[in-house]
Amino acid sequence: MNMRQSQLFTKTRREAPSDEVSKNAALLIRAGFINKEMAGVYDYLPLGLRVLHKIENIIRDEMNALGGQEVLMSTLQRKELWEKTNRWNDEIIDVWFKTNLKNGGELGLGPTHEEPITNMVEQFVPSYRNLPFSVYQFQNKFRNEIRASSGVIRTREFVMKDLYSFHESDKSLDQFYEKVSDAYVNIFEKCGIGKNTYKTFASGGVFSKYSHEFQTVSDAGEDTVYINEESKVAINKEVYNDEVLFDLKIDKSKLVEKKSIEVGNIFKLGVKFSEPLSCKFKNESGEDMPVVMGCYGIGPARVLGTIVETLSDEKGIVWPKEVAPFDVHLLRLGETEEVKVKAEEIYKKLSEKVEVLYDDRDLRAGEKFADADLLGVPIQVIVGEKGLKENTLEIKDRKTGEVKNIHMDELHSIV
Amino acid sequence: MNMRQSQLFTKTRREAPSDEVSKNAALLIRAGFINKEMAGVYDYLPLGLRVLHKIENIIRDEMNALGGQEVLMSTLQRKELWEKTNRWNDEIIDVWFKTNLKNGGELGLGPTHEEPITNMVEQFVPSYRNLPFSVYQFQNKFRNEIRASSGVIRTREFVMKDLYSFHESDKSLDQFYEKVSDAYVNIFEKCGIGKNTYKTFASGGVFSKYSHEFQTVSDAGEDTVYINEESKVAINKEVYNDEVLFDLKIDKSKLVEKKSIEVGNIFKLGVKFSEPLSCKFKNESGEDMPVVMGCYGIGPARVLGTIVETLSDEKGIVWPKEVAPFDVHLLRLGETEEVKVKAEEIYKKLSEKVEVLYDDRDLRAGEKFADADLLGVPIQVIVGEKGLKENTLEIKDRKTGEVKNIHMDELHSIV
Repeated sequence: MNMRQSQLFTKTRREAPSDEVSKNAALLIRAGFINKEMAGVYDYLPLGLRVLHKIENIIRDEMNALGGQEVLMSTLQRKELWEKTNRWNDEIIDVWFKTNLKNGGELGLGPTHEEPITNMVEQFVPSYRNLPFSVYQFQNKFRNEIRASSGVIRTREFVMKDLYSFHESDKSLDQFYEKVSDAYVNIFEKCGIGKNTYKTFASGGVFSKYSHEFQTVSDAGEDTVYINEESKVAINKEVYNDEVLFDLKIDKSKLVEKKSIEVGNIFKLGVKFSEPLSCKFKNESGEDMPVVMGCYGIGPARVLGTIVETLSDEKGIVWPKEVAPFDVHLLRLGETEEVKVKAEEIYKKLSEKVEVLYDDRDLRAGEKFADADLLGVPIQVIVGEKGLKENTLEIKDRKTGEVKNIHMDELHSIV
Repeated sequence: MNMRQSQLFTKTRREAPSDEVSKNAALLIRAGFINKEMAGVYDYLPLGLRVLHKIENIIRDEMNALGGQEVLMSTLQRKELWEKTNRWNDEIIDVWFKTNLKNGGELGLGPTHEEPITNMVEQFVPSYRNLPFSVYQFQNKFRNEIRASSGVIRTREFVMKDLYSFHESDKSLDQFYEKVSDAYVNIFEKCGIGKNTYKTFASGGVFSKYSHEFQTVSDAGEDTVYINEESKVAINKEVYNDEVLFDLKIDKSKLVEKKSIEVGNIFKLGVKFSEPLSCKFKNESGEDMPVVMGCYGIGPARVLGTIVETLSDEKGIVWPKEVAPFDVHLLRLGETEEVKVKAEEIYKKLSEKVEVLYDDRDLRAGEKFADADLLGVPIQVIVGEKGLKENTLEIKDRKTGEVKNIHMDELHSIV
C-alpha cells in the first residue's frame, strides 16, 4: 500500500524524549515509528506497524513451510494450570503480572505459553498416528521486568512468535529441531541481520545438554557470547568453560568475547511439560507415553529493535529491503505546477510496481532529505525542477549514500 | 493456503463440553475452531483463526478505504492517564482488570483505548492543517465481566477493531461519521449478516443526541431493539420512548420487538476526551481548540460468533463464502489407488484457483459427511469410486444441501 506523506499523521522530531536512553527507541520515536506509553511499553504507529507486520510475515512464511499450524492462545491464564508445573509461584517465574477476576479467583497474564498449549493439545493426541505436528502463534507476552531500558528489545508487553512441536520420540524431535534451526537462519537472513547473527550454544535443561540461541552481535546487547567469526561457531557465557569447550570441540584460541542481543531461541523440552500436564498418546504397543516436545521463540519487535540498533547510521534508520515500511521514498523538491504534475505521474507509475511513500509536502529540500534519511526507506527517488529540464531523476541508495542520475525513461530499472 | 485434513491437528467432537451453554461456542468447540480456556476466555485454533483473520481483513480493507491509518496501542495502561478523564475509578468503568508493576505502581489492562489514543495523537496536531485524519487498530481488550456465558460474543479478552477520528469541526466529524456508517454496512454485508443487521438509534452522550449501534437480530442477543423490517429503521430499547420516536419520526405501529447482538457501534465523542487530555490544535485564527473526535468499534470475534449463532443449522456451521476457512472442502470416499490418485489430482487442480481443505483421511463416508457439514465450508466436492467410473464428481452446496453431479471436465465451473 502506498501513502502520501502529507496524509501520514505522525511527524518526525529532532530530539527523542529525554528519558529515552536506548538508541533503537530514540531513533524509532524520532522517526515516528513508535510511541512510548511508559518504560518498557511502546505503541506501534503506522510506519512501525508496517515494519512489524513485514517481519511477522517473513516468520509466518517460514513457520508455514515447516508445516506449522497457526493458533492464537489467550493472555489470561488460569492459576490451576500453572500450579501443575510449579510455575505459578512468583519465585519460579519472577516476571508474572497477576490480576483478579471480579467474581473470584486469581489470573495471570501469560509470560510464555507452554502450559496452555500443552493442555490444549492433550485432547487431540489419542495415538502416535496423530504425531508429529507443530503449532505456532503471534501472541502478546507480558513480563513484569524490573529493568526496562533497552527500548523495544526488552519490554513488559511484546508480541512473540512461539512455535511448539509435538513428537512420539526424541528422534522425531531432533529432526524437526534441525529444520527449525535452518528456518531461523533464513528468517534472520531475510531480516537483514544474518551476517551478525550466530547460532549459539546455550544451556539446555533436564532433557538435553544444550539449547541454541540466535545472538546478534551488538554493544546494546545484554548477553555475552564467545564467537569464532570465521567458522560462525558461538557459545553463550553461561555455558562457557573448558569442559564444555572440550565437549563441543571448540578451539578456545579463536574465540572473541562480544555483547549480543538474543533474537531467537530453540529448545528441546522433552517431557518437561507433557508429564505434569498429562499430555499422553498411545504408542504402537498401546502404552500411554508422554508427548515429546520442543519450543522455539522469536520476538518480532526485538528483531525490529535489533535491526535499528545494528544497521542505523548517524543520519537515521537504514531498513533492509525486505522489512522496510516502503520500497521507495519519492521526494518532490519544489512547488511549481510542472514538478507537481511530474511527481504525481511518477508516484502513480511507481505505485503500480512497488510500495511508495510520496513526500508531497510543501517543505524545504533540506527538511525532506533529513526526514527521508531518518525514516530509512532503502531507495530515495528525487524529482526536482533542475532534473526535470533534462528529463532526469536522482536515485539515492540510503545505505551507501550513492546518488545517480537516471533518465526518466529508466524509472522501471529501479524497481 | 490449502490443507490436508490428515495433517490438521484438531479433531471434531460429538459433544461440546458440558459447561458450555452458548450455541456459538458449543458448535465452534465441536468443530475444533476454538478451545475454551475458562469462562469468557477462548483460544483460536487453526480453522477458527483463519475465519477471524478473514473477518479482520474485510474490516481492514474498509478502514483503509476510509483513509484510516493502522496502529497498535499497548494493553498495559498508566493510571495517571485515566485519572485525567475520571475513568480509572472501578465504579465508573466496572470491568477493569488491574495489576501491579514489580517496581511500584498500579497498571490497568485496556478495556478500551480513547485515553491512550488521544494522548498519543496530541503531539501530532499542532495546527488545523494536520486535521482531519483517522487511526485504527486490531487490539486486545480486557473486560472483567461478571457474566460470561455468551460464547465468543461476550468475553473477558477479545480482539477489537477500534477506529478513532480527529477533526477541527463538528461538520467534518459529521461527514466522516456517515462514511464510517456506510463502511460498516459493507462490512456486515460481506460477512454474510447484512440482511439481519440494523443500524440502530442508541443513546448519545454529552455531545450528540444519538449514537448508532449495528444490531443483528438473534435470540442469543443480550440487547432488545424495536425494528421496522421493511424500512430497516431500528431503535434500541434504552432510548425507546414516545418523545424519541416523535423526534426521529418513527411510526411506532410498524415496530416489532426483537432480541439482538450488538456487532458494531459508532459514536460522536466531540471533545469529551480531547479536553481533559489537552489534545488541542491551533485554528486558522491561531486560537487553541480541542480536537473533535469520533470512535467506531467492531469486535471481529463477536462477528464470528454472530455468524455461527444466526446462520448455522442442525448439522453444524454454515460459513458465508467470504469468511469461510476454506472455499472448498474436497472429500475423498474410498481408499482404492484409483480414487486416491484422482483425488490428489483434483486437489492440486483446485488448489491453483481456490483454498481447499482436502479430507484425505481413511474414514467412513458417513463420518466424513458429518464432519464436513459440521465444519461448514460452503462447497463440498465429493470424489468417490462410483462417480469415477462415469468420470463425475458430486458437488454439494452446504447451505442449501443441493447436490449435483458434474463431469470431471467441468471442475473449473465451481471455482
